[in-house]
Amino acid sequence: MKKPKWVIEKEQAKRAAGGDRVWLFGLHAVRDALANPDRQCHKLVVTKNAAARLEEAIATSGLVPEIADPRKFTAPLDPGSVHQGAAVEVSPLSWGDLNARCKPAPGENAIVVLLDRVTDPHNVGAILRSAEVFGARAVIAPVRHAAPETGALAKTASGALERQAYLRVRNLGDAMEQLKDMGYLMVGFDGDADAVIGPALKNVPPGPVGLVLGAEGPGLRDRTKDLCDVLVRIDPAGGFGSLNVSNAAAVGLYAVADALGR
Amino acid sequence: MKKPKWVIEKEQAKRAAGGDRVWLFGLHAVRDALANPDRQCHKLVVTKNAAARLEEAIATSGLVPEIADPRKFTAPLDPGSVHQGAAVEVSPLSWGDLNARCKPAPGENAIVVLLDRVTDPHNVGAILRSAEVFGARAVIAPVRHAAPETGALAKTASGALERQAYLRVRNLGDAMEQLKDMGYLMVGFDGDADAVIGPALKNVPPGPVGLVLGAEGPGLRDRTKDLCDVLVRIDPAGGFGSLNVSNAAAVGLYAVADALGR
Repeated sequence: MKKPKWVIEKEQAKRAAGGDRVWLFGLHAVRDALANPDRQCHKLVVTKNAAARLEEAIATSGLVPEIADPRKFTAPLDPGSVHQGAAVEVSPLSWGDLNARCKPAPGENAIVVLLDRVTDPHNVGAILRSAEVFGARAVIAPVRHAAPETGALAKTASGALERQAYLRVRNLGDAMEQLKDMGYLMVGFDGDADAVIGPALKNVPPGPVGLVLGAEGPGLRDRTKDLCDVLVRIDPAGGFGSLNVSNAAAVGLYAVADALGR
Repeated sequence: MKKPKWVIEKEQAKRAAGGDRVWLFGLHAVRDALANPDRQCHKLVVTKNAAARLEEAIATSGLVPEIADPRKFTAPLDPGSVHQGAAVEVSPLSWGDLNARCKPAPGENAIVVLLDRVTDPHNVGAILRSAEVFGARAVIAPVRHAAPETGALAKTASGALERQAYLRVRNLGDAMEQLKDMGYLMVGFDGDADAVIGPALKNVPPGPVGLVLGAEGPGLRDRTKDLCDVLVRIDPAGGFGSLNVSNAAAVGLYAVADALGR
């Protein structure tokens, strides 16, 4: 069911008003956010010490920081967040729509990563890093049942959140269909697949590829699996064990980049 | 400098007396520990609910569990540990010495992973999982400046801690020299290396390989780097970013297994 136009407009207004704002924290993440011209930064809280270390980035951003006492840091973070004396309130980045972001140029071996209900921010952060390293066009996840763009995710992404497209779509299956129309071959990771990753990816024809990964445990949902063109598994050498989802994504990205590079 | 014999004996006595005992937690980790015949389990704390879910494993272990109130769980865990109502006090597993564990059979393309000051338990846990999947003989780390075998590591390792050798050595450089004497080629990961991982590993001659990874940021120490036979880098496609260390290990393991499999 499509959302009525007035609902969409209301949501957009809410977003514009800052309802979706998040706090990023940690020296590295805050510096990267301040230095990113596409990132809207609203409020900056730093200790004196952190202010000195971020001097250049703060000057670039034009923000006037609120100086906080290290013993009672005033930014509204989860307890236990390793903020290193720096936090910034930001709006999520806008990565455009699926078509604009992912449409491959003629002959381009584009790669995208699709995440089916991968909700752990540390895993998604690590996947964004790997996606950036292997030149993926985007990491794509549904708006619901995915890891939101939070401070914990940003910290694990170690700067990649500012540079690597993390596209949230209403419906993952619909996005897969659109990508297939653009020429993407959908390669799903599934422990029960008949094909083994190495040989299967070497046989993939040149062209754009989407790697589709599910959450550990439940794996890919039925419709997601049905929409895959190929299902591959990563065989445990001794018959036991499985990769963490971010490790599986890294292996998949390497294997595709390696196969398409030849 | 070698430790005097009396120091070694004192340490062994301390270990035997349980000084090195650790608490593992979470249903999965506790079940795997109880089911592992090589694992010495000393004390088991479970809620009624968890006791029911672990019934079979508890029966196998022969331990008499202490039943805890879910609201005041009595095992001495770090606050925030997601124990799911189950914790067990264990001795670290004994994986034998380097020679016994890693000496390759004639013609065997054995793989080991060496970690130079990788101290984050979540990364080491994920690396143990990947090492198991790709059939590594051992993950090797120094006794000091490494992630100890803790509950957090066990949880991230998702069962692999019970099955994948995690060998702690006194000195990583000495271990590298011993492994080289056994025929291992040492492949180090270094952002400034001349060689790129894919082509470099395809040119590696058949035989045992050690993958050497350092902590993010500092990377490999000088002696570690000097002892490597080959240094390789993983190039970021867009010139920015780097892999999380467990993701780099997974890519390395896949690439070596793939190269040696041909």
